[in-house]
Amino acid sequence: MPFTNQFTVSLPEWAVAAQAELPTHIPSVESQMREVIRFSQLNIDHQTGGPFAAGVFERDTGKRIVIGVNRVVPSNVSSAHAEVVALSLAQQILQTWDLGSVSLPALQLVVNWRPCAMCYGATLWSGIRSLVIAGSDDACETITGFDEGPMHPEWKEEMIKRGISIQDGLLYEEAIAVFRNFRDRGFVVYNGRSSS
Amino acid sequence: MPFTNQFTVSLPEWAVAAQAELPTHIPSVESQMREVIRFSQLNIDHQTGGPFAAGVFERDTGKRIVIGVNRVVPSNVSSAHAEVVALSLAQQILQTWDLGSVSLPALQLVVNWRPCAMCYGATLWSGIRSLVIAGSDDACETITGFDEGPMHPEWKEEMIKRGISIQDGLLYEEAIAVFRNFRDRGFVVYNGRSSS
Repeated sequence: MPFTNQFTVSLPEWAVAAQAELPTHIPSVESQMREVIRFSQLNIDHQTGGPFAAGVFERDTGKRIVIGVNRVVPSNVSSAHAEVVALSLAQQILQTWDLGSVSLPALQLVVNWRPCAMCYGATLWSGIRSLVIAGSDDACETITGFDEGPMHPEWKEEMIKRGISIQDGLLYEEAIAVFRNFRDRGFVVYNGRSSS
Repeated sequence: MPFTNQFTVSLPEWAVAAQAELPTHIPSVESQMREVIRFSQLNIDHQTGGPFAAGVFERDTGKRIVIGVNRVVPSNVSSAHAEVVALSLAQQILQTWDLGSVSLPALQLVVNWRPCAMCYGATLWSGIRSLVIAGSDDACETITGFDEGPMHPEWKEEMIKRGISIQDGLLYEEAIAVFRNFRDRGFVVYNGRSSS
């Protein structure tokens, strides 16, 4: 059990290659979401993490900063959900812990589902100015078995109150199709604990 | 703005050195908390992060796995709160994303304050079996200005329901003293966003 003083979360090689092939700008938010959903599917196809992806884009120009994917199991980091990966990578690329800094254009987080109880807080602390999600009902939990945790009953209102705008329901069916595919292929669901 | 495909969070050098000098086991939870609070003070003394520290210990033997500290500003990672750092490092040391794995002894997280809205979820997803905190009232927010975010109104009950036991109020005054020291020295408070 050697001591280690750091942890690293990396994108899989396919995700680096796939975004190198994308245009620098993806102006429509629907096209951004389509890419994010495509990455969520690729993440299970390559067996490099769970069926979740998230992208950080400039809100007004569609400039692509980074698209991240879930990396919990491959990284041995239970907090490496897609949102945390995307936000942390964007913070490295832009060299700031505050994606809401006045020196930056407004940044938007696009995710293939609503945040879990952790990513909710992670999104708030990132400084991001807006959040776009494909859905927020119980479909993801029901289909995949992933637990989203105890969400604040007024999570959307609390987020808006803190200056983050929310768009919900973009490409809902496309997002769900990936969750169904994940279920049908019998992949592992990691939740808080594998035993009781 | 070069693309980067990974992010790393490291402990500061003093924290590596300081825990190398600690005994392998710290049997009493009070002594564990005392160390955690000492690390929270050292983190501001060295200006290596906010006034927060967290330790992962074997619950029944007091074996020390790792003590982490807040690293948000030095790492440019807004999710690098003390709990996330400690849990992620413990997961590297034990080579698992699931600190509640049946192959491990029961593990406990000891923190110098209650979790924020993000660390609440991060604690749930880590698999940890118990949480010990120095306090959970509004003293930290009031003294330091750190925002804990919209917490689930029944956060403790929801945590217990998911198999995590909670001990609250251990060395409350000692924890608060660090927050006062942080305030009195005029250090930077980073919240979700530095601008509105």
